[in-house]
Amino acid sequence: MRMSELAREAGLPTATVKFYLREGLLPEGERTSATQAQYGEAHVERLRLIRALVGPAGQSIAETRRILRAIENPPSDYDLLGIAHQSVTPERDEGVDLTRARALIDRLGWNSAYCAPDSLGALEEALQALTAGGFELTDEVFDRYASAMMGVAIDEVTDVPTDSASSAARFVTLGTVLIEPLLLSLRRLAQQSASAERFGGIAPSPPPAP
Amino acid sequence: MRMSELAREAGLPTATVKFYLREGLLPEGERTSATQAQYGEAHVERLRLIRALVGPAGQSIAETRRILRAIENPPSDYDLLGIAHQSVTPERDEGVDLTRARALIDRLGWNSAYCAPDSLGALEEALQALTAGGFELTDEVFDRYASAMMGVAIDEVTDVPTDSASSAARFVTLGTVLIEPLLLSLRRLAQQSASAERFGGIAPSPPPAP
Repeated sequence: MRMSELAREAGLPTATVKFYLREGLLPEGERTSATQAQYGEAHVERLRLIRALVGPAGQSIAETRRILRAIENPPSDYDLLGIAHQSVTPERDEGVDLTRARALIDRLGWNSAYCAPDSLGALEEALQALTAGGFELTDEVFDRYASAMMGVAIDEVTDVPTDSASSAARFVTLGTVLIEPLLLSLRRLAQQSASAERFGGIAPSPPPAP
Repeated sequence: MRMSELAREAGLPTATVKFYLREGLLPEGERTSATQAQYGEAHVERLRLIRALVGPAGQSIAETRRILRAIENPPSDYDLLGIAHQSVTPERDEGVDLTRARALIDRLGWNSAYCAPDSLGALEEALQALTAGGFELTDEVFDRYASAMMGVAIDEVTDVPTDSASSAARFVTLGTVLIEPLLLSLRRLAQQSASAERFGGIAPSPPPAP
């Protein structure tokens, strides 16, 4: 198909498709003349994936490029999570002191030696933001969050497909970024439901008409 | 203190402080002349909170303004979560069909009538992104995520302070946005620890020297 059909098929403006081409997120089509190229079903799928990543998952163009690269060039062994997480984590200031984050992880009985510095840095920054916001987090509450996330993670790691490095890389990389908005929306909906039970509360909108 | 001292105290460039003033995130200081004003400890604290919100929590300037407003003008009753969530949720395209999201919430035994359309829309968008990414989510896996998040939410709703609407609003609004990066970093760290157990794996960096 031509560029204009590709754009229509993917539900995107042609200018956006051209932008993704220029940024190297979308592979070139097959040239049929100096000004025209043909695109196939793989291009449509790739555009849907890009939309998913830059839309709800909120990844930047640079992050999206890293994610697509990780999916295309899977590591040959199963030390995937570190590589996948690196590919989806924005690079951090190396000056962040990770001492507290490492100590917290080790206190939980997890293994900070296997944790990526970027992820430990993200934990440290989240804790600093809570302090800056005047939001007190007790050890008990921290441990509760950690234990809920370990429950989630154990199931996820168990589910990683092991038939090929490529499907494992896809599962891990997309699972990391695409599940995040799902988890956060479920948390808010759970809070709203639980809050209605605790405080009563006014339904924010009438239920849909039958 | 003067603007330059305020900036130093908050660890921000003066230009950034001026930008927050212009954007109305930071209240004006007390004018001492046509070109000078005095700032106090409350301004320093406000700047720390703004840094926390636009930094790790990744809120935009418009979202940060909504959050600060919700904290300053708490609702008079305890129907807080809806208001707090609205104040931290970017406005969504009203065209999103919420039928599937409502059905999923009701199947979980939660109460979709008490759920904000924006949050249901976020769930629907997260599900669409998973589909677009070719990431299959079974009912069983969805229910597992939902149940983990309900566990988290029940504890959080139980912890909402009820001494004043103002402290409740602060807890709910900041708790929503500032806990999100904490949860996501803990999930990645838990995945890395659990993955090291399942697959062995190479530590991404040597543990800190003793």
